[in-house]
Amino acid sequence: MTRIAILGATGYTALELIKILLRHPGAEIVALTSRQEGNPPVATIHPSLNSRLDLSLENLAPTEVASRATCVFSCLPHGVTASLVPSLLEAGCRVIDFSADYRLNDPDIFAQWYGIKHPDPDRLGKVVYGLPELFGDDIPDAPLVANPGCYPTSAILPLAPLLRAGLIEPKEIIVDSKSGVSGAGRTPKLTTMYAECNESISAYNIGRHRHTPEIEQILGTVAGTAVEVIFTPHLVPMDRGILTTTYSRPTGEVSEEKVLQTLRDFYADEPFVRVVDHLPGTKDTMNSNFCDITARIVRNRVITISCLDNLIKGASGAAVQNFNLMYGHPETTAL
Amino acid sequence: MTRIAILGATGYTALELIKILLRHPGAEIVALTSRQEGNPPVATIHPSLNSRLDLSLENLAPTEVASRATCVFSCLPHGVTASLVPSLLEAGCRVIDFSADYRLNDPDIFAQWYGIKHPDPDRLGKVVYGLPELFGDDIPDAPLVANPGCYPTSAILPLAPLLRAGLIEPKEIIVDSKSGVSGAGRTPKLTTMYAECNESISAYNIGRHRHTPEIEQILGTVAGTAVEVIFTPHLVPMDRGILTTTYSRPTGEVSEEKVLQTLRDFYADEPFVRVVDHLPGTKDTMNSNFCDITARIVRNRVITISCLDNLIKGASGAAVQNFNLMYGHPETTAL
Amino acid sequence: MTRIAILGATGYTALELIKILLRHPGAEIVALTSRQEGNPPVATIHPSLNSRLDLSLENLAPTEVASRATCVFSCLPHGVTASLVPSLLEAGCRVIDFSADYRLNDPDIFAQWYGIKHPDPDRLGKVVYGLPELFGDDIPDAPLVANPGCYPTSAILPLAPLLRAGLIEPKEIIVDSKSGVSGAGRTPKLTTMYAECNESISAYNIGRHRHTPEIEQILGTVAGTAVEVIFTPHLVPMDRGILTTTYSRPTGEVSEEKVLQTLRDFYADEPFVRVVDHLPGTKDTMNSNFCDITARIVRNRVITISCLDNLIKGASGAAVQNFNLMYGHPETTAL
Amino acid sequence: MTRIAILGATGYTALELIKILLRHPGAEIVALTSRQEGNPPVATIHPSLNSRLDLSLENLAPTEVASRATCVFSCLPHGVTASLVPSLLEAGCRVIDFSADYRLNDPDIFAQWYGIKHPDPDRLGKVVYGLPELFGDDIPDAPLVANPGCYPTSAILPLAPLLRAGLIEPKEIIVDSKSGVSGAGRTPKLTTMYAECNESISAYNIGRHRHTPEIEQILGTVAGTAVEVIFTPHLVPMDRGILTTTYSRPTGEVSEEKVLQTLRDFYADEPFVRVVDHLPGTKDTMNSNFCDITARIVRNRVITISCLDNLIKGASGAAVQNFNLMYGHPETTAL
Repeated sequence: MTRIAILGATGYTALELIKILLRHPGAEIVALTSRQEGNPPVATIHPSLNSRLDLSLENLAPTEVASRATCVFSCLPHGVTASLVPSLLEAGCRVIDFSADYRLNDPDIFAQWYGIKHPDPDRLGKVVYGLPELFGDDIPDAPLVANPGCYPTSAILPLAPLLRAGLIEPKEIIVDSKSGVSGAGRTPKLTTMYAECNESISAYNIGRHRHTPEIEQILGTVAGTAVEVIFTPHLVPMDRGILTTTYSRPTGEVSEEKVLQTLRDFYADEPFVRVVDHLPGTKDTMNSNFCDITARIVRNRVITISCLDNLIKGASGAAVQNFNLMYGHPETTAL
Repeated sequence: MTRIAILGATGYTALELIKILLRHPGAEIVALTSRQEGNPPVATIHPSLNSRLDLSLENLAPTEVASRATCVFSCLPHGVTASLVPSLLEAGCRVIDFSADYRLNDPDIFAQWYGIKHPDPDRLGKVVYGLPELFGDDIPDAPLVANPGCYPTSAILPLAPLLRAGLIEPKEIIVDSKSGVSGAGRTPKLTTMYAECNESISAYNIGRHRHTPEIEQILGTVAGTAVEVIFTPHLVPMDRGILTTTYSRPTGEVSEEKVLQTLRDFYADEPFVRVVDHLPGTKDTMNSNFCDITARIVRNRVITISCLDNLIKGASGAAVQNFNLMYGHPETTAL
Repeated sequence: MTRIAILGATGYTALELIKILLRHPGAEIVALTSRQEGNPPVATIHPSLNSRLDLSLENLAPTEVASRATCVFSCLPHGVTASLVPSLLEAGCRVIDFSADYRLNDPDIFAQWYGIKHPDPDRLGKVVYGLPELFGDDIPDAPLVANPGCYPTSAILPLAPLLRAGLIEPKEIIVDSKSGVSGAGRTPKLTTMYAECNESISAYNIGRHRHTPEIEQILGTVAGTAVEVIFTPHLVPMDRGILTTTYSRPTGEVSEEKVLQTLRDFYADEPFVRVVDHLPGTKDTMNSNFCDITARIVRNRVITISCLDNLIKGASGAAVQNFNLMYGHPETTAL
Repeated sequence: MTRIAILGATGYTALELIKILLRHPGAEIVALTSRQEGNPPVATIHPSLNSRLDLSLENLAPTEVASRATCVFSCLPHGVTASLVPSLLEAGCRVIDFSADYRLNDPDIFAQWYGIKHPDPDRLGKVVYGLPELFGDDIPDAPLVANPGCYPTSAILPLAPLLRAGLIEPKEIIVDSKSGVSGAGRTPKLTTMYAECNESISAYNIGRHRHTPEIEQILGTVAGTAVEVIFTPHLVPMDRGILTTTYSRPTGEVSEEKVLQTLRDFYADEPFVRVVDHLPGTKDTMNSNFCDITARIVRNRVITISCLDNLIKGASGAAVQNFNLMYGHPETTAL
């Protein structure tokens, strides 16, 4: 039984994480942190946890966390995590980090996209990117795992096999993503108020969303060459789910069947990627750790469609998948 | 006061059309047709029309329609309209057709995409495409206007000025569209049941949506050369609204400001196209006849974003805009 | 042409009001106030107004407002309005107030429910309650009209005729209301974040919602005796609309038809109340100034169902209806 | 390991049931029936089951079902189930029936509300009503369990303890319920089309919903006297969830705390009923088998609020809870 602490437990990804861990036979949640005043019981923040988890939110220092837990899931914002991780690792904890702090290899690129100097730059480039379908071999022994972003997972999973197989050009890949609103977090702001975003779809952060360098870096690693994506995220009036439509140019003649078979072969042994023939909708993957993928060829362009639940496969489910690999559980436990 | 008949009055576009015409000082609705049994009052089919329109649905032949009305809006399905239009025109009616029957110039392309032999092939190629922003000069005298499809309007308005100005390549234009559910019509089917499409986004008919040849034909006319689009429609959980994201390759060096200025200039005198600097959402245009457009350049790709209400600017509002031009009303009357 | 100022122009009711007034032939909007910094153009706050209203938000004192406008619509919060109204009236403006400040007759009841001492207590009891269906005769000459609350309108319209006719008991009337989220205003808060209230329905403020005394006072006036309601508001995942279900006890034997006929007779000459036989949904009244009402008898209880658009008949539409009566326009102008 | 057949596997409750049973250590799904042609794989009907359940839908006779399975969950419509159950029981199967066929004790009342003569009238009155919180002792040995309706569960759980304690009058109990759209089933019809019911709330079947006699019978059993409810269901634009607001008259002086304590005491040992102090929303119980309940006193009326997921605690979760009791598993297994 692994003793687990969750840092930043008031948000949506923490809530999903708690729900998954509550049904995990090898996990015991022992601490939840937050800067909320007064140590409120977690169920006052997340009423769905009533009678399910009898813990209070506490404002704990890393040493206090480490004295209770051996595994730490950090749902803290970008920048904050990397200021705590060194202490946690030093104190012997293993860390699964939901923030972007350890996803990029280059502190300059981090600074450029996140607007802050990285607090722990020397570790960059040495941290495992926690996408088990690509880096599963490195995860079991990792002291620190950078849990992927939700958009990157939805873009990398369909594109990686095609890039690795050399079927598509690495430049000018268009990634047109559509996400539910929970991806924007739980802090009240005008743009995610119900009456603002309901019954509306809009694009945002075109060409400057922070997940862009993450997608490019990971796909570049896979492809063995620099990859360039044009990334356009959209906000869709639904709670959860991401559908990503990609458009890329084939390197040569390629059939739809060849593309689909390449995807099927690549993920043949992966329990959470389903290569399907039909056009999937996000609801097919809602509340699950699946990513559904298909592909089409139109006018000699390769189009992929991928769907996942941004809070599960795009965050907390992936984190538990990493946890399972790190602690020797079957990869699908509790998922 | 123009006496108006609406054919196929049970659907969503007919309902919107009625609501607009009820506030039009130059229009009087005198007949509503449907194959519903028993001539039900229209308010039993559209309860929002209670106390607003005291007409019943009737199953009328073209001659009966023509004996009452001088202007006919046809909201009938593809194939049906073209079997009635010749009689209506012969009887002296002017017709605004919501179906695709008279949008394409080539009966073979019609047959290929709509799966039926065109019932009135000789008229194809001589009918005005009722997009006033492009073909406004031809509309005032037209006996028959082919009202544009909702997706085509959302794709043509942002792309036409750029193609005409030679700023973008006419090939490999990606049109990634996202539509609310009312676009799928009012006939009950599984895919548009609430519990199926709510909280889900999905792509459909990739590469084979019937609006593809319509977009290509009109843009080709504008560009003076063949245009090829890769069109991917998506179904979004909202009642109404289309957001279209296009990706195209510039013909040369071009700045974001140049693209925006080209759009602004092109639509400077158009009352219903708003070229904006911010990224618009469909809600900005909901229940209005506006189409909001903006553009960005990312990694040397031109991206346009356009928003409109599929039932208004994408259907019934555009129809009344055409009606206004045909009958000498100010273009914005009742809109 | 009446020159109009709108105070507190950043919210949803102000936006709806502007849209209605823009199509009103006798109204010209000349000033919009807000405490927003920097006098932003109104279209930066409400993008749907782009190209439709070329005014900026200004932080204006009452005298400045009065120097420009003759009619003032105040969409300011409770408490704030009543501190400005005396100056506005003194300066010769007529005021239509969306807040609750002048709805209650008794300053003690105001203090009890709103938690503040009333800033202008002497005027209470002398202000017309702007529900034209009940107090239409007093509105044309009123310098100040208290525009009704959204819930009260939905509860008063079905119950008033039955109380006045003595058909139902004035005690233990249950008012179970269901409202869309826009009723909660535009200020970001956790409870009205999309991912919180979407896909959820909840009750709130049971027995202590501030609209309770308003409903009781107006119904008491109508009934000529004290009326007691048990008011339970619910938050429903939709943008707009209120459906109110009331349960009351008949004073004697009464048939469903008698109840319906009493409602029909009472509203026979009212353009915006539709007494219908079917069970209406809020969508039937969306974007309109209608209130749809029906009634049923179950186990000797009178049940009424009423629907309206909280932003139109529940706020801005009613305000323009009042404006029409105050300034001699046909009651339905622009509505 | 119990071999399980699910009859009528194409609907929403069957899908939820399958998902729950897939994580149940003591259940193996061995047969799925449907009258769909061609024995399609279940994943073609429910794409979310791709790679999770490799079974096809078959049109099986009761004897064929019984030859494979020992426990049968029937998700068939009313009337159909009772024509199959006798054969299934005779063949040695135990049956959990989702339909209303065995919920009512009196065949005449069944005929009156369901419009058909009961196919198996002699069994009525001898079947356990599968609400474990009330009839848990009778479930372990039951060959046939009548799984409760979704609305009844939401109304009975808050009212039963108060009636049994004699705190409220058994007459004139108002049950105002609000349900998500999945409760209306998966068969396409106009009223549950997305663009019809989205952004709208409406009441339906007031005073004549078939769950009325079920609520009255069970509450009557609990109270030891006839109970009369006025039941008003509403359709809310959300996938799932029921919130029920009840209004009843106390038999004497009673405090809010007394009501709450009565509820707390009654459900002290029940794992799936949470008596809470705050006002719960349906989202608190979404995707879970919980029913959250609270109470308020307003003007001497007892108000209860209860929330549950209509597809889980209102259907498939309750069914598995019954299965657990019938087959000796801990009551919370897989829930």
